[in-house]
Amino acid sequence: MLGKGEFGRIRDLLTPLSGKGAFDLKDDAGVISGIPGHEIVVTTDTIVAGVHFLGSESPEEIAAKLLRVNLSDLAAMGTKPICYTLNWSLPSSYGDEWVTSFCAGLKVQQEAFGIYLLGGDSTSTPGPACLTATLFGHVPRGQILRRVGTKLGETIFVSGTIGDGALGLLATKGMLTDLDEVLVQKLIGRYRIPEPRIRLGIALRGRASAVADISDGLLADIGHLAELKGLGAEVNMAEIPLSCEARNALAKNGELWQVIVGGGDDYELVFTGEQNLADLLLNVGVNITAIGKITAEPSVRLVGPDGNIMPVNKEGYCHS
Amino acid sequence: MLGKGEFGRIRDLLTPLSGKGAFDLKDDAGVISGIPGHEIVVTTDTIVAGVHFLGSESPEEIAAKLLRVNLSDLAAMGTKPICYTLNWSLPSSYGDEWVTSFCAGLKVQQEAFGIYLLGGDSTSTPGPACLTATLFGHVPRGQILRRVGTKLGETIFVSGTIGDGALGLLATKGMLTDLDEVLVQKLIGRYRIPEPRIRLGIALRGRASAVADISDGLLADIGHLAELKGLGAEVNMAEIPLSCEARNALAKNGELWQVIVGGGDDYELVFTGEQNLADLLLNVGVNITAIGKITAEPSVRLVGPDGNIMPVNKEGYCHS
Repeated sequence: MLGKGEFGRIRDLLTPLSGKGAFDLKDDAGVISGIPGHEIVVTTDTIVAGVHFLGSESPEEIAAKLLRVNLSDLAAMGTKPICYTLNWSLPSSYGDEWVTSFCAGLKVQQEAFGIYLLGGDSTSTPGPACLTATLFGHVPRGQILRRVGTKLGETIFVSGTIGDGALGLLATKGMLTDLDEVLVQKLIGRYRIPEPRIRLGIALRGRASAVADISDGLLADIGHLAELKGLGAEVNMAEIPLSCEARNALAKNGELWQVIVGGGDDYELVFTGEQNLADLLLNVGVNITAIGKITAEPSVRLVGPDGNIMPVNKEGYCHS
Repeated sequence: MLGKGEFGRIRDLLTPLSGKGAFDLKDDAGVISGIPGHEIVVTTDTIVAGVHFLGSESPEEIAAKLLRVNLSDLAAMGTKPICYTLNWSLPSSYGDEWVTSFCAGLKVQQEAFGIYLLGGDSTSTPGPACLTATLFGHVPRGQILRRVGTKLGETIFVSGTIGDGALGLLATKGMLTDLDEVLVQKLIGRYRIPEPRIRLGIALRGRASAVADISDGLLADIGHLAELKGLGAEVNMAEIPLSCEARNALAKNGELWQVIVGGGDDYELVFTGEQNLADLLLNVGVNITAIGKITAEPSVRLVGPDGNIMPVNKEGYCHS
């Protein structure tokens, strides 16, 4: 390997990112001490060039997305993040410049979320870049939030606004050309750098009956929560919170509502609980909106403003 | 994706491998409870098709190697394994048959080492298969074994026999043709399925001053231990324990000693301590051999049977 080589990259770029229990990355393992009365939560995601990122993103944006999709999983479990391990398999075309920028991006995210690097592995690959992050957090014993647990008649809530991630993905592919460029860039930003709802997740401990982050699509993720208890859901289209950008996109092309309810990548939280749950969530840094109910009939139905069921494309329910 | 699809593979093949805290793989994270007075040790390795495995291995062998190289890292830290996460990025040519055999291989290793699957991520890739395992174990607080800590004058020990991994790699490449086929197959087996020295690692707690597993090569890994304290080492060629297969290979080609001391992939433990340390390690399931001393002169020297320093190829010291 030309340039710094594996040891040089570890010493110069990764060791400064490491923290407690990482032993300056001089050993082949790291240590998490844990907190009495707490459990360690583990989540992991892999992203592959050409599949999960498209090549036009900056190394800093890729670093941000890699950590944030994992942090969003921790948020959905009501977990406070601690640290992470990183595995990268990089083709030789990813030189020291790319790696240096990528590590600068990791540092920004570490500071934003109070986490540090515990360890990892770096290898070469003859194929596309393949990046895995494994995130660790802690949660008081017995208070972890789960997908399973929703009950008949409970209210369905979402955080933030829905559809921006999927619209942002369309925009990165040049498919929202009739929208103002400023709005396009905001949607692309939402797709590339999601906002993990850590504070909300912690506030939901002991309050929400079931929680997921919206990665597969709003209706698909609601479907997962309901199916785990043999239940269904009814969602009111008019209640789904939309950003100014999404409203503008929808005004230009009325068919985009399919993308908003079916696309993924929002990384907002969807959760169920008592009707007054939103009143208890005023200081979590994000708006909470009630959008529907858990029902006995085992399917997810989207109710339009006119009260009729809207015919949703199948891709809103599939995941492969 | 044709065949089972992601959800089908999780339900049919991976969920049966999961254990406590994995929530049947129905959530995006798993939980490790920890043991009072213990720390959680984390290690991770990635293997890429065409780089770390060659394509001729069976899925079961790939599963074995992936878990065992990580278990070897835990062994070197004196850690008892608990569970693991698995990330696979597979090209479409790896169908259900490959995945089914790979999971059968994971099951065999899980039973051999008393571990279970905690979670993971599965993605597709347009490139070569890329597999990451992250292993978790526990160790009593403050008793973790480290690479750093060796002292001047201490004895250097190794477990098992040295060089079989590197000779096995040569054999898989068809480069040991003059050796008996039975011996060739045994060496290939040592390369493909290393033996993590878990019991030895646990027995070394509080006894060894520094420990590593031999993955880069005997002299390189001894060099790492010594360098961390600004020291060097003297290793006696005649004391290095060799298998019957390695002795036969060496008898056919005297130059192979360079491969034995310079090649990697043995996954035996190398460690330093008091001269009588081996006497305390009689019930660890593997032979322990003293092979040299830690010295003040900061380099690793190999002393031949005639007492002269042997000229070692540079690749014995490099790692990229």
